Amino acid sequence: MTESMDQYMRAAYEEALAGRNEGGIPIGAVLVRNGEIVGRGHNQRVQKGNPILHGEMDALSNSGRHPASFYKECTLYTTLAPCIMCSGAILLYKIPEVVVGEDVNYPGETAFLRSRGVKVTILNNEEIIRMMKTFIEENPTVWNEDISEEV
Amino acid sequence: MTESMDQYMRAAYEEALAGRNEGGIPIGAVLVRNGEIVGRGHNQRVQKGNPILHGEMDALSNSGRHPASFYKECTLYTTLAPCIMCSGAILLYKIPEVVVGEDVNYPGETAFLRSRGVKVTILNNEEIIRMMKTFIEENPTVWNEDISEEV
Repeated sequence: MTESMDQYMRAAYEEALAGRNEGGIPIGAVLVRNGEIVGRGHNQRVQKGNPILHGEMDALSNSGRHPASFYKECTLYTTLAPCIMCSGAILLYKIPEVVVGEDVNYPGETAFLRSRGVKVTILNNEEIIRMMKTFIEENPTVWNEDISEEV
Repeated sequence: MTESMDQYMRAAYEEALAGRNEGGIPIGAVLVRNGEIVGRGHNQRVQKGNPILHGEMDALSNSGRHPASFYKECTLYTTLAPCIMCSGAILLYKIPEVVVGEDVNYPGETAFLRSRGVKVTILNNEEIIRMMKTFIEENPTVWNEDISEEV
């Protein structure tokens, strides 16, 4: 079953599209606290030559410094299932809930997140799946670099 | 038993001390490939107001973009046991070996790293332990923010 986007996943998707328009890897994320977007970002590997700025990491980076009490009221929305680095960041900051646009093109570490108590919802939205599938087919080298797979 | 520092842990420690001299959290790291330091950095929470730039992440960030084949020849040296975010980054990039200055002041996720096949060596060097202990005692608020612990 595929699910539609709410305003927050829509914002994460817009981040992904912004990244694509910059020539980057189209993965976007927003950090939401009590209904308000408090951080947003997208993968910056190509744009900034930076291997740690996955979409989720860029959103956390852009949200700035906060105490633990801040993050426990947050939900992270990301267009693609988070890798182990981004999952680790979610666990470090004890973000209790993650909403994932799709896990068809990349399985990520949602099972690991759940095993450590994070609530994970996977939408598998068709528009996001199609967008990411097209990007991977057209850009296999940079995609494999981003998930550190040998080719 | 406490062990002495080799040139790489010494470089990571110098990064930690540089961070302390900047008013930051004194945790440093270097990425070493075939005997050569290819990335170095230190925690930048205070200096850059950035929650994702732990020492290990800053070193990976400063080392730039690389394919998976690059990282598999690397060892990461870090003064403090890596948290779950930094451990996730180590696993994403399949860095096979991590050398840890100490895990007395923070246990980190070395058991998790080992469970996923990473070789972890923990030196528990006295000089690094003492330096970090003093920092935490004098700066409990920023330290707890960095590991996202409620106070």
